[in-house]
Amino acid sequence: MLEPERILRLEDDRVVFLDQRRLPLEEAEVACSSAAEVADAIRTMVVRGAPAIGIAAAYGYALAAARGEDLEAADAVLRASRPTAVNLAWALAEMRADPSAAHARAIHRDEVERCRQMAAHAAELMAPGTRALTHCNAGGLATGGYGSAVGALVSAWERELLEHVWVDETRPLLQGARLTAWELEAAGIPHAVIADSAAASLMAAGEVDCVVIGADRIAANGDTANKIGTYGLAVLAHHHGVPFYVVAPTSTVDPGTATGDDIPIEERDPAELTARFPARNPAFDVTPAELITAIVTERGVHYEPFEESLAAEGAAA
Amino acid sequence: MLEPERILRLEDDRVVFLDQRRLPLEEAEVACSSAAEVADAIRTMVVRGAPAIGIAAAYGYALAAARGEDLEAADAVLRASRPTAVNLAWALAEMRADPSAAHARAIHRDEVERCRQMAAHAAELMAPGTRALTHCNAGGLATGGYGSAVGALVSAWERELLEHVWVDETRPLLQGARLTAWELEAAGIPHAVIADSAAASLMAAGEVDCVVIGADRIAANGDTANKIGTYGLAVLAHHHGVPFYVVAPTSTVDPGTATGDDIPIEERDPAELTARFPARNPAFDVTPAELITAIVTERGVHYEPFEESLAAEGAAA
Repeated sequence: MLEPERILRLEDDRVVFLDQRRLPLEEAEVACSSAAEVADAIRTMVVRGAPAIGIAAAYGYALAAARGEDLEAADAVLRASRPTAVNLAWALAEMRADPSAAHARAIHRDEVERCRQMAAHAAELMAPGTRALTHCNAGGLATGGYGSAVGALVSAWERELLEHVWVDETRPLLQGARLTAWELEAAGIPHAVIADSAAASLMAAGEVDCVVIGADRIAANGDTANKIGTYGLAVLAHHHGVPFYVVAPTSTVDPGTATGDDIPIEERDPAELTARFPARNPAFDVTPAELITAIVTERGVHYEPFEESLAAEGAAA
Repeated sequence: MLEPERILRLEDDRVVFLDQRRLPLEEAEVACSSAAEVADAIRTMVVRGAPAIGIAAAYGYALAAARGEDLEAADAVLRASRPTAVNLAWALAEMRADPSAAHARAIHRDEVERCRQMAAHAAELMAPGTRALTHCNAGGLATGGYGSAVGALVSAWERELLEHVWVDETRPLLQGARLTAWELEAAGIPHAVIADSAAASLMAAGEVDCVVIGADRIAANGDTANKIGTYGLAVLAHHHGVPFYVVAPTSTVDPGTATGDDIPIEERDPAELTARFPARNPAFDVTPAELITAIVTERGVHYEPFEESLAAEGAAA
């Protein structure tokens, strides 16, 4: 397993990231010496994945506090680095109460522990011989360690329930083909990368038993924002009678966002697709709650109506 | 408009292709001096698109006849170059009756003329202000001139019915982002390239009025093989109430193939997706007839039940 401090860590005077843009070709690190530099690392996707960017923001804030930076400015620059994931705002709210390095490290440790818990719950949903399909990277790289959706696959593999994983390559930035495949290889789990557009015919052929994904923000009613392409997968899974599971920590649930309509969707540089022709490049989409079979958090498995179940969890948190 | 002889042509002692692998960066040509070299050009996708590879096979066969090659061997090597499109077999059957250069050129001319006819029929299906979505390249490059699905868009644009085209980039070989965008730019039609996985959320947002695609083989019952990702688009279009149109010449209809289950699906080199990890790379998928709103050929618009309508057309041909 990828050690949490290899993915990101706070040192005395800097935050150090494994540069996810260069994987799997190279395991290079990027060091940031201010909150603004950490925000840049988030924006340029040195680090990505909703829980991981929450942890990155916590480390950036702790670094700013240690350096005597203006904490209001640090909060603003970190918060603005990416708009869709709610974990950024969640982690910064946590850090305002206690901006210490120890607190930031505790947030990191807790996120990884939550992954282990949700992965165990999610694995229980899988039958022996499961061939799962996943999209983007909801692995240790995305959560600061262990992973949410990929954590669920690792847990299912350890329980001998998982046979194979179809990995959507995940255009345009290929987080599936670069990062998820790399993590599954390290875990020894049989897998094959596919074009995102090949998922439908694999489902039609009966070669997909469930779809397992992470989340960037879950609205109060269960509507879920995740990497572009997730919504289409949910429609396809519904059409083919394939269960569709969202695996994410409670830090991704946003009780302040009523429905998916209220989630801001980041539009990224069209040049990520093509620099030669006009292009449109939304980074996320929203899957309505009715297409989701279950949402799995560290506290357990939630079924519709998600609103009550998720709210009860928040109250207990 | 891209001139047919720029896309492919028969010269005295060779067949010359515009190298579609190098577009849009470079307009280079590849010359083939035997049927085997033409088969290589088809296999390696110097030329692609079901009608265009039919024309290429006709030229290859005529070249073999002019050179005094063994015509049975020429037929076999050309036929085996790609398995899914039926146009290869159709064109070779035509050429066996008359292997002359004039006949091959007539096949080319006829395919382009059929495109103009089917495009006019398909444009009539579109209302003013249409925002269409297309996948892969069913343009002049794919048909030897004018285009089937892209021809329909050009015809709708000329009639002032078309507002905008969403172009699926079409992984792994990016025929949309490289070839269709290039053709639409040349025609002056507003367009934007999208990740294949972004189509679903554009449909959910009401930004897609119809899907228009070509075909590699249409079975007798209307089941349609086309570039991987087409079937998923059809499911998504159905879910969102978006019309789904197939535009293809009768040379793509195969009365000898009863249903989509009988269409061989080419599996291409996984390295087209990733050379680093295991991958699965089917080049095509099959869309069942019940997800297709209409099939448009040079003879007109066909609705369900396609079996009778397509068979009647074959009889009239």
